[in-house]
Amino acid sequence: MEKIVEQALLYDFYGELLTDHQKQVYEDVVFNDLSLSEVAEDRGISRQGVHDMIKRCNRILQDYEEKLGLVEKFVKTQEKVQEIHRLTQEYRKTEDKELVFKIEEISAQISRL
Amino acid sequence: MEKIVEQALLYDFYGELLTDHQKQVYEDVVFNDLSLSEVAEDRGISRQGVHDMIKRCNRILQDYEEKLGLVEKFVKTQEKVQEIHRLTQEYRKTEDKELVFKIEEISAQISRL
Repeated sequence: MEKIVEQALLYDFYGELLTDHQKQVYEDVVFNDLSLSEVAEDRGISRQGVHDMIKRCNRILQDYEEKLGLVEKFVKTQEKVQEIHRLTQEYRKTEDKELVFKIEEISAQISRL
Repeated sequence: MEKIVEQALLYDFYGELLTDHQKQVYEDVVFNDLSLSEVAEDRGISRQGVHDMIKRCNRILQDYEEKLGLVEKFVKTQEKVQEIHRLTQEYRKTEDKELVFKIEEISAQISRL
């Protein structure tokens, strides 16, 4: 997975467990593309402080994922849903009823994730 | 939702964020149905200590859910998957192709959860 997508997913799932201050700095640097120096000036902390905070936030988010694995589960669910979508599209064209049985199987797989 | 089911789901999602000690006591009382006194004796703590720990663990798990809402999301996903399952079963009987379009809609709903 691309690093920025992975960071966005991790933040999406676990961001609420960071402090407000951490969230603001993290969003500015990672999602709003501000430079470390800009953020440092805005927040009245050192450039190194911003750098350390981002590193620390990444570690915190990664630790939650290692314990809970919810991003991985989410990605797998999305893949299965995409598969169902693909099968329904194919059904539109072919009306092959075997496809519906495949859909059934995949929905069972989702419920076991 | 039944309280024990809710506790089980909360524990399933966020249990790894408790300490090992908290996990052991929580499992003994909530899932293994041991009495507070039994667990207190096993662990060498007071009965009140066990009681407080369970209360505190419930609070911690509930706080994570309030911040992250992953149990709620999981329950909704499961409901949608059940709906897909029901529709595929109905399709088996009727071969009504409209049902497949409904399935498509529901899978799109899952991916937006």
